Amino acid sequence: MPFVNIRITRDGATAEQKAALIQGATQLLVDVLGKNPKTTVVIIDEVDTDNWGIGGESVTARRKQGI
Amino acid sequence: MPFVNIRITRDGATAEQKAALIQGATQLLVDVLGKNPKTTVVIIDEVDTDNWGIGGESVTARRKQGI
Amino acid sequence: MPFVNIRITRDGATAEQKAALIQGATQLLVDVLGKNPKTTVVIIDEVDTDNWGIGGESVTARRKQGI
Amino acid sequence: MPFVNIRITRDGATAEQKAALIQGATQLLVDVLGKNPKTTVVIIDEVDTDNWGIGGESVTARRKQGI
Amino acid sequence: MPFVNIRITRDGATAEQKAALIQGATQLLVDVLGKNPKTTVVIIDEVDTDNWGIGGESVTARRKQGI
Amino acid sequence: MPFVNIRITRDGATAEQKAALIQGATQLLVDVLGKNPKTTVVIIDEVDTDNWGIGGESVTARRKQGI
Repeated sequence: MPFVNIRITRDGATAEQKAALIQGATQLLVDVLGKNPKTTVVIIDEVDTDNWGIGGESVTARRKQGI
Repeated sequence: MPFVNIRITRDGATAEQKAALIQGATQLLVDVLGKNPKTTVVIIDEVDTDNWGIGGESVTARRKQGI
Repeated sequence: MPFVNIRITRDGATAEQKAALIQGATQLLVDVLGKNPKTTVVIIDEVDTDNWGIGGESVTARRKQGI
Repeated sequence: MPFVNIRITRDGATAEQKAALIQGATQLLVDVLGKNPKTTVVIIDEVDTDNWGIGGESVTARRKQGI
Repeated sequence: MPFVNIRITRDGATAEQKAALIQGATQLLVDVLGKNPKTTVVIIDEVDTDNWGIGGESVTARRKQGI
Repeated sequence: MPFVNIRITRDGATAEQKAALIQGATQLLVDVLGKNPKTTVVIIDEVDTDNWGIGGESVTARRKQGI
């Protein structure tokens, strides 16, 4: 019954891509630890680029600089 | 000063229902552990059904299949 | 299939008290939103008082001051 | 490579204010623990006032009462 | 620069298994969304079975019942 | 009433350093957003280096390689 939380920037991930993340993360727990996929929960949080920082700057600011 | 984070699918929970979750979770910590309700924080996150997976599938996909 | 994360200071909560938190939080989601208890997950995190701050001070420091 | 998650009520924080939170949290980890700012991640979550509770009530309800 | 948090019960996962989870989760984000693996962070939390509940009961209690 | 969660590798941060993180994060929210420090909560999670990954590898593995 693992719980996986995936946080990504909000950049238009499609429902198909999210489904692939859910399927892949669930399978990873099955493959590595033999966990039961039926009770494995995956939650994806999409975060605005203004609200995500790395290196002391927002992703919005970094992209403007071409980083 | 407990902290409670409740994550549910985004399905139109009303302000009254959210208030009941906040009240109930706070009271639970008072009843079980004698915590101070004044400093108990509850945060409710509503998650799109495309972004919530269980059993390797999104809730959106499961609902289409009538699961 | 809600997910509830309860964070409390590490103060010797017993297995019985934790079971009561799990039971109570699960029932709360049933009562307020009609959620399925079978897939409701509750995780309790116990946090050392040095690692928990409120009012700009650790809980360890506050307790020494009798706050 | 610390990870910082800041949760605030959704009250119109500007991109500049969020950038200041990202910059300040990153610098804090540099100053106190000598962490590498380049791999320090900060994520800001803005939470609706209906979804944030303290003292057993939502922030929405508390503000109506002038608390 | 995604962030992945994997929560599992504390059941003696080895360093090799944890490394496989880190490698697999990072690769998943590369494969599905083309994310940069260098800035992808994975954190694994191991939770005592008394502190993890599903179906209104702790995992400790469920295992005693053979569930 | 902001909530701040700081996650760092478990590397022997002292109580004084943790107190400085709590004080600094609280002050940051006061300075940038005018938040009330009395209800600002800071929780520090220390994570074993086997359980923290970046670039597809655990921090334990990276340190052995001198990265």
